[in-house]
Amino acid sequence: MIKLDALYSGKAKTIFKTDNPQKLIMEFRDSLTAFDGKKKSTAPKKGYYNARISEELFRLLEEGGIKTHFDSMLSDTEMVVDAVEIIKIEVIVRNIAAGSLIRKYPFKPGQKLDPPILLLDYKSDEYSDPMINDDIALALGLATREELLKIRELALRINSILVEYLNDRDLLLPDFKLEFGRRNGDIVLADEISCDTCRFWDKMTGESLDKDVFRYDKGDLASAYREVARRIVPGISL
Amino acid sequence: MIKLDALYSGKAKTIFKTDNPQKLIMEFRDSLTAFDGKKKSTAPKKGYYNARISEELFRLLEEGGIKTHFDSMLSDTEMVVDAVEIIKIEVIVRNIAAGSLIRKYPFKPGQKLDPPILLLDYKSDEYSDPMINDDIALALGLATREELLKIRELALRINSILVEYLNDRDLLLPDFKLEFGRRNGDIVLADEISCDTCRFWDKMTGESLDKDVFRYDKGDLASAYREVARRIVPGISL
Repeated sequence: MIKLDALYSGKAKTIFKTDNPQKLIMEFRDSLTAFDGKKKSTAPKKGYYNARISEELFRLLEEGGIKTHFDSMLSDTEMVVDAVEIIKIEVIVRNIAAGSLIRKYPFKPGQKLDPPILLLDYKSDEYSDPMINDDIALALGLATREELLKIRELALRINSILVEYLNDRDLLLPDFKLEFGRRNGDIVLADEISCDTCRFWDKMTGESLDKDVFRYDKGDLASAYREVARRIVPGISL
Repeated sequence: MIKLDALYSGKAKTIFKTDNPQKLIMEFRDSLTAFDGKKKSTAPKKGYYNARISEELFRLLEEGGIKTHFDSMLSDTEMVVDAVEIIKIEVIVRNIAAGSLIRKYPFKPGQKLDPPILLLDYKSDEYSDPMINDDIALALGLATREELLKIRELALRINSILVEYLNDRDLLLPDFKLEFGRRNGDIVLADEISCDTCRFWDKMTGESLDKDVFRYDKGDLASAYREVARRIVPGISL
C-alpha cells in the first residue's frame, strides 16, 4: 500500500489517501485540542497510545458482530481503514453524568444513567457541533430515518460491549463519542475509540484517565493515556 | 369565582389561585422580555391582544378535538384555566426556518421545513431552557415515554389546525412554542398561544407580527399585535 497526499488534517489525526481508492490511512498524532480548539498541546506517545487502544477496541467490536472501518495497522500510529462516507453526526453515549451534561442540566456529577442517554451533535466546525435531534438530522439531510434507528441500535450495542470489557479492566466508561459511515449500503463504525473520544475513570478511585486530564489540568496526560493502554492492550510496549 | 393570591408571576403572565382548587386565573400583562430576560419593556394593550388571541385559538383547537386547559374568560385579560400539572418541557414546532434555528444550523432563512421540525427544551430559568431530547427528558423524569409520544402527536395535530386557520387569515406560522400539562391522567395543552409564543408573518409581505418586532426593534409592537388580533379574533374591539 502506498501512502499518498493528506486528504484531511483534524485536531489529532491526519487522513491520507492511498493507491487503493477503497482504503485510507488514519495517522494518530501527538497533538490535541480542547474547548472547541481554544486549548492546544502535544503529549509524547499520545498518538501511539490512542492508535493501539482504538485498534484493540475495533477488534473487540468486530468480534462482537459490529462492523467497523478498521482494516489493519500499517505502523504503531497508522491505521488502514475503509474509505467510508462519513455521516456528519457525532453520537454521544452517556452512562454516568459528567462534563457538559452536568453543566447544561440538573444531573448530579457521577449520577448513574440507566438506561444510557444518547445524544446527537451535528458534526460541523463552522457551527461548533451543535446538539441536534432526529427531526433536524432529517431536515439537514444528514441521514435517513432508517439510518438514525440503525445508528441508535448500534451505539447501544457498542456501549454494552465496551462497558463490560472495560469493567473487567477496572475502568468505568462515563461517556464517549462515536462516528459512523456508509459502506456498500451498510452503516459501519468509523473514526476512533480512544482516550480523546471516551471518558475513562479508574473504577476504584474515580480518577480521570482521558482528555479531561488535559482539559482540567488534572496531571500528566501521557501517564494517564499510558495507563489506559496498559489495561486495554495486552502486551503493549509502553 | 374569587381571585386569591398570586401563585407565580412570569415574564408576561401572572397565575392566581381561586376559591376553586381545580381552577386558576391566568392574567396576561403588558410587560414582555426577550433574550433570556436581558431585554425588557411594556406595550399598551399587549396583554389584552394576547389574551384574546389565545382564547380564540384555544377554542379553535377544542373544536378540533384537542383538549386544552382553557375554561373561560373572566375579563379581557384574565383567563380561567384548569389547574393542570405543568410538564417542564417546551415543545417548539417549526414550519419555516427562522430565529435560533438559522443561527445554530445551516438552514436558509425562510426555508420551508416539510415535515415540520419538533424541538424540546427543558423549561428551566436556572438552566436557561436548554435543548433536550427524549432520553434526557426520561432521565430527568420530566415525562414518560408514552407522554413524550402523545405530546409529539398532539403538537403535530395542533400545528396542522393552526397553519390552516392562520393561512386563511393571511398569516404564516414559521414556528411556535407549546406547553402541556397533566389533567386526570390525560395530557392537555396549557400556557398560551399568542404573539409572544408564536412567530406570525404576513403571508404577502413576510412582515413580522410577533415578538420579533420587539426583539429586533422592527417597529411598533402594539400595532403588530393589534393586527394579528384583528385577523384572528372576529369582531374584537381594537
